[in-house]
Amino acid sequence: MWADVRASLKAMVSMSFRAIVPAGGAGSRLWPKSRRAYPKFLHDFTSSGASLLQDTVDRLAAVADEVLVVTGDVHAGVVQNQVPTSGVITEPSPKDSMPAIALATAILARRYPREELVVGSFAADHIIRDDDAFGQAVAAAVRTARAGEIVTIGLTPTHAATAYGYIRPGEMLDDEGAARRVEEFVEKPDSPTAMQYVAQGYLWNAGMFVARADILLAGLASQHPDLAQGIAQIADAWDSPRRREVLAAVWPTLPAISIDHAIAEPLAALGKVAVVPADLGWSDIGDWDAIGDIRGDGAGQGLTVLGEADLAVAIDSPGAVIAPKKQVVVVGIEGAVVIETDEAILVTTRDRAQDVKAAVAALERLGRQDLL
Amino acid sequence: MWADVRASLKAMVSMSFRAIVPAGGAGSRLWPKSRRAYPKFLHDFTSSGASLLQDTVDRLAAVADEVLVVTGDVHAGVVQNQVPTSGVITEPSPKDSMPAIALATAILARRYPREELVVGSFAADHIIRDDDAFGQAVAAAVRTARAGEIVTIGLTPTHAATAYGYIRPGEMLDDEGAARRVEEFVEKPDSPTAMQYVAQGYLWNAGMFVARADILLAGLASQHPDLAQGIAQIADAWDSPRRREVLAAVWPTLPAISIDHAIAEPLAALGKVAVVPADLGWSDIGDWDAIGDIRGDGAGQGLTVLGEADLAVAIDSPGAVIAPKKQVVVVGIEGAVVIETDEAILVTTRDRAQDVKAAVAALERLGRQDLL
Repeated sequence: MWADVRASLKAMVSMSFRAIVPAGGAGSRLWPKSRRAYPKFLHDFTSSGASLLQDTVDRLAAVADEVLVVTGDVHAGVVQNQVPTSGVITEPSPKDSMPAIALATAILARRYPREELVVGSFAADHIIRDDDAFGQAVAAAVRTARAGEIVTIGLTPTHAATAYGYIRPGEMLDDEGAARRVEEFVEKPDSPTAMQYVAQGYLWNAGMFVARADILLAGLASQHPDLAQGIAQIADAWDSPRRREVLAAVWPTLPAISIDHAIAEPLAALGKVAVVPADLGWSDIGDWDAIGDIRGDGAGQGLTVLGEADLAVAIDSPGAVIAPKKQVVVVGIEGAVVIETDEAILVTTRDRAQDVKAAVAALERLGRQDLL
Repeated sequence: MWADVRASLKAMVSMSFRAIVPAGGAGSRLWPKSRRAYPKFLHDFTSSGASLLQDTVDRLAAVADEVLVVTGDVHAGVVQNQVPTSGVITEPSPKDSMPAIALATAILARRYPREELVVGSFAADHIIRDDDAFGQAVAAAVRTARAGEIVTIGLTPTHAATAYGYIRPGEMLDDEGAARRVEEFVEKPDSPTAMQYVAQGYLWNAGMFVARADILLAGLASQHPDLAQGIAQIADAWDSPRRREVLAAVWPTLPAISIDHAIAEPLAALGKVAVVPADLGWSDIGDWDAIGDIRGDGAGQGLTVLGEADLAVAIDSPGAVIAPKKQVVVVGIEGAVVIETDEAILVTTRDRAQDVKAAVAALERLGRQDLL
């Protein structure tokens, strides 16, 4: 399967597909495991034996000619250790996803000027359980991108989630409906709206974008010419002795903006974005409840232990999620979440998992930067 | 006040009042702080700066001529360190309260043969907030005991508790009603029965007994002659070189039985037990919910921290009880209980606090004797 997909991609002479992985974001809902100094993407939340970043890179390495990770200065060392075969681009400060993706794209375009270069951007900290479906979706997205589209992979909803933005699909762009026009990107809905979206066939926006490098950079130039120009300046200097100097001068002047706001939404409004619908067994494992969903049994009654199973005892506490360092005993709390690290213990329930972000904010107000 | 009480007691020529403190019991509902090797009575659960045992001994030292602690071999060292001015009697194995109290009484009777000796037995791990009321109650109990009664101090209920046995009081034994006949000791009731008891003026049985040494030992001999004889043998040898030999030979043959079952209940049925009603601000601090009641604010909405306050953060978790070693953050659990020690973390809620005993039993079944 992988060999087939890869061979068919490689068979296109002078064409390449290169994957970009922006690895940023604190993942503060997964505190205290996820920390600013050691964020979500560096952790093995699925007990796969590999971090989320490593799983992401492995998945992409099977379908792409190259995987390039974009991360912050402070994480560059551990990222390079975790994924030694990937290229790493370091950004001096976080600027959200658009500058990171644009810089990686512009650098790749300069390195491979004679290729018809397609790039794809994929989050470092999501999980995808159906690798075959992912390979199919990427192949379809690359095909569609070659025709000049900016393509997103839109996920078939499994429930009326309120935690994600949605994509309204329009006309089919091929006979099989492998790609469709994007009518609109919509923001995270409330619960009734989410149910409407699901009933109407909307797709989840997981932030996966695939496009020809020239199309993506032209799209950026049309929407944010200053940003595009700044990125071009840095990319021109990147593989030269002037990298540090130009980066220090230009990067701080760039706006922080997501790829959704910068190009996907405005270009979709102009009818220039396509979507490949896919069912990938995807999760953004956004909080401890999601960890329980992924790791626990289907009924949500089992005990999920991250770490040594003997150290977690749950009595009359169905669906508990426990990450112990020493012995943890939970008595009588349905869906209890107990996460112990060397520095802190979080205690909450799965239905309050979204509020862990508030806990981290509270610690910040208390001046406990050492715990963030 | 204390000087008055003590002086009036001491003024009775050739009379003495000596207090016995059986210090046993694991206090497993207060796990993981209370451990077999370091049980409840050795801990400072009230943050008074003193352990429950020390508070008990201090309270008794103000009204008694002597305080004698009876404890297990394994705890003798730390008990003697905590209460260096008290005598300590060590028992080779736990036999519940009657053998401990009888042995201490018999030893005291032999040490002070020319005194009219009154003894009183008081648990090592309860708290009493009203020291003045306690002094008054003890003085009334000692007066009543001198007249030949076995006297218990019965507590005015503050609610329809189901965790304690009750005492049904009968006729007044003096003009003021300071002492009354005990009609009956009754076992822990269910909730409707407890409400009836409270409505009918029943008192809580907190296991406080005061009696003349000769009356207590005669009462024991009448009910359990073999036990009384074994105790006499050991007491005869106690302050002699034969202590170890006789203790080793006789103690293992003694039955384990509480003072309630051994003498209080049968002698009450014979009309030979009196009760001094008292309102002492008493608690047996039997579980973590009780710790929250004692330490928290009156409305039960505040946060109770045992330890460094900065290490406990409770968000939307009214009435939480937290004992942190490192940073603990609780989100969205009303009445959360999070108790961290070096070896273990307990997570439950105040309304499930009684079930902590089940958690300890579960650990025992799992072979985690190291944690008990």
